[in-house]
Amino acid sequence: MSYDNDNIFAKIIRGEMDCLKVYEDQYTLAFMDIMPQADGHTLVIPKEAAETLFDLSEEGAAATIKTVKKVAEAVKQAMQVEGVSLVQFNGAQAGQTVPHIHFHIIPGSLAEARSHARNMVDSAKLQPFADKIAALLSV
Amino acid sequence: MSYDNDNIFAKIIRGEMDCLKVYEDQYTLAFMDIMPQADGHTLVIPKEAAETLFDLSEEGAAATIKTVKKVAEAVKQAMQVEGVSLVQFNGAQAGQTVPHIHFHIIPGSLAEARSHARNMVDSAKLQPFADKIAALLSV
Repeated sequence: MSYDNDNIFAKIIRGEMDCLKVYEDQYTLAFMDIMPQADGHTLVIPKEAAETLFDLSEEGAAATIKTVKKVAEAVKQAMQVEGVSLVQFNGAQAGQTVPHIHFHIIPGSLAEARSHARNMVDSAKLQPFADKIAALLSV
Repeated sequence: MSYDNDNIFAKIIRGEMDCLKVYEDQYTLAFMDIMPQADGHTLVIPKEAAETLFDLSEEGAAATIKTVKKVAEAVKQAMQVEGVSLVQFNGAQAGQTVPHIHFHIIPGSLAEARSHARNMVDSAKLQPFADKIAALLSV
């Protein structure tokens, strides 16, 4: 399938839409999920235009998992949780809602987390989590 | 936490326990989950002794996601599904049951998948899936 340049994550990457950013480097970007399944739910995306893991280059995948690891450590510490889950959906059938590959970093118990992509939360409520996580990543 | 050399995935890596292997290279191993949440549920692990993503080296993470991508493509094709999800638990609180990092590759709808680590399935039932997936990976 051809990549949709107008998907919301493409717009975030181009700076045409706001996000609560916690980390950015040359290849990747991390920001708060505005429909969090748990407090501190963060997303990591590659800047490469790829809809799914199947479309992502090997280099893009390596850069993304490197950032996922780094951000997941900060999320764990910031949210003071014992457990952190990664979830990554490929294709609408799997549950993917935005057609740009993204890794969900979900603190705490995944079994007890809220449903995926269900309820939007006001940015003001997410800002304190973003600030805590970003502070641990800005070294 | 120190790595438990007697966990079942460590035994599988050392060849002390059987698995339904679908792929192996220098750094990684992929085999069928014996408590599948969906038909074709496959696991990818690094050979590096690491309990969670936080313990895994950057090189190990890159090698693992490379294999995850490769095996997920084969799972998608073998199981003839539109969607594939990745799930990776860090810590018992998140839902991790074996203390060696592993990526779950779950075909189909994750929302409709069975519960994690609940019911063991006989190897004979998983063998046809393993054969199909492995066939696509042995090039």
